[in-house]
Amino acid sequence: MKSYFYLLPILFSAFILNAQTPSHTIAEKLGYPANSKLLIIHADDAGVSHSENIATIKGLEEGVVNSASIMVPCPWFPEIAAYAKKHADSADFGLHLTVTSEWKDYKWGPSASKNEVKSLIDPNGYFYHLVDSVKMHGNAKDVEKELDNQIQKALSYGIDVTHFDAHMGAVMSTPEFLKAYIKKGREYKVPVLLNSKIEALSELGDFELTEKDVMVDSVYQAYPEVYTSKGMEIFYEEILNDLQPGLSCILIHLAVNNEEMMAVTKEHPMWGSQWRQDDLDFFTGEKVKKLIADNNIILVTWKEIRDKIVRGE
Amino acid sequence: MKSYFYLLPILFSAFILNAQTPSHTIAEKLGYPANSKLLIIHADDAGVSHSENIATIKGLEEGVVNSASIMVPCPWFPEIAAYAKKHADSADFGLHLTVTSEWKDYKWGPSASKNEVKSLIDPNGYFYHLVDSVKMHGNAKDVEKELDNQIQKALSYGIDVTHFDAHMGAVMSTPEFLKAYIKKGREYKVPVLLNSKIEALSELGDFELTEKDVMVDSVYQAYPEVYTSKGMEIFYEEILNDLQPGLSCILIHLAVNNEEMMAVTKEHPMWGSQWRQDDLDFFTGEKVKKLIADNNIILVTWKEIRDKIVRGE
Repeated sequence: MKSYFYLLPILFSAFILNAQTPSHTIAEKLGYPANSKLLIIHADDAGVSHSENIATIKGLEEGVVNSASIMVPCPWFPEIAAYAKKHADSADFGLHLTVTSEWKDYKWGPSASKNEVKSLIDPNGYFYHLVDSVKMHGNAKDVEKELDNQIQKALSYGIDVTHFDAHMGAVMSTPEFLKAYIKKGREYKVPVLLNSKIEALSELGDFELTEKDVMVDSVYQAYPEVYTSKGMEIFYEEILNDLQPGLSCILIHLAVNNEEMMAVTKEHPMWGSQWRQDDLDFFTGEKVKKLIADNNIILVTWKEIRDKIVRGE
Repeated sequence: MKSYFYLLPILFSAFILNAQTPSHTIAEKLGYPANSKLLIIHADDAGVSHSENIATIKGLEEGVVNSASIMVPCPWFPEIAAYAKKHADSADFGLHLTVTSEWKDYKWGPSASKNEVKSLIDPNGYFYHLVDSVKMHGNAKDVEKELDNQIQKALSYGIDVTHFDAHMGAVMSTPEFLKAYIKKGREYKVPVLLNSKIEALSELGDFELTEKDVMVDSVYQAYPEVYTSKGMEIFYEEILNDLQPGLSCILIHLAVNNEEMMAVTKEHPMWGSQWRQDDLDFFTGEKVKKLIADNNIILVTWKEIRDKIVRGE
């Protein structure tokens, strides 16, 4: 009988690896100590306006902001796309996949042909204002087609896409949309922002997540009620002082509070122009740097996660 | 033999009418003395940006500007459309029919589905930058479809469309486009801006103009070379002091020279932000009012022309 004992060490190490892999933390996979406090400080909405673009660039260049995501269907997409292409080595840009057009006087529609994604557009040819309208009218096939168009367009502009996330959470808002979104991440081998609090996650049925579908442990965002209660600065201070080990993400929205941005956000004071300027001020200020250092927070990018986990062995 | 003599007076008056109608000047048709100096001070490009919208509104409300035209495919269309609807009784808004997207970092595409007007879009899904590209790639069927979409959308927003004109002259740039443009004017019973200097007019073949296709005698615009030679103020002063009897039109472009407009017009100093601010300053100033009064110039609107000539008996 041929002896296979020489295989035992290999089989044993494979067993150990299999047993251990699930328990490896994201931090370990990225090469940090298991209990590291990892943080992505992430600017949403790049491309929505010139104001948003210049503020996002300022946040990345002068602040602690270390990742951002771009709205491909928006009018100012080419401006931020050119910046992202030029700074592909140093900056971390993903796509803020977009199927809503939420402002009053300033609108955009799909990247796909309108008649190919009819369920996503309102009678004026724009995306719907509200996520609820997308949930009511949209079908997953159209969502998938639109996402493909946005991704292909971003790639054609030379953006080294590091991740996907979801503008207003619209493409996470139903189980079918969420599946399309996760599948796009797998197809293009980029991480997609996922977090256990996404309601539709519990309704995926037999669609199973894998270890490559990276879950962010905690996602923070200064919702309107924060703005009117404790204020942005205290809100962010508390997050940074209380940050737990694991992978966290603070979603911010950077804009210069100027005439353009005030007009874009007209009648939306709570997601408004000054709220965005406050984000810019805090995340380009000195206090945030000290809070990050004092709390031993390690800033990580989506590109690290993409290359070491999603595209890694 | 039956006598037809009783028809003579009728035939005679019909002959007189036929003989006289062509010699009626536009001024007479509008109810002014035959040799009046009629002028439309017309702001192009409304809808292109927020800056352009607020400046256009300022020009109409505080200046001598008495007509404007709106670019339907542009992102800020809904803002100016809402204003136009609200001020339909007092303001004169036409459509600045658009098949180009000329700026570098800020883009728009067709109102029609992209796959229905393929000859009008570049590989990124936007309109081409240049009129020459539209002439090279565009076909008249697609132009007509796109114009229909823009017109229908404007009407659905409640704009009382007074006239059509052509952004960058693109839809006047070939005989076939020009025919489509004139036909749209006839179809919707609105005047379209026409002037004998339009090159394609001489190439219309057996497509004949009628008395309802109103020709503007003189069209003025501060081309880039004006800006660098005599300057805008002297240019406009000379036009107003030398204005001839007939129907004239000064095409101006109003914007506030702010961060948004500087970014929109990046690398286009000659059609740029300050050039537009100069227009705003001149046409909301005191000097222009005096020049109009001193030269006995009568300001007329496209709505008058539409209602008294195109829709009149």
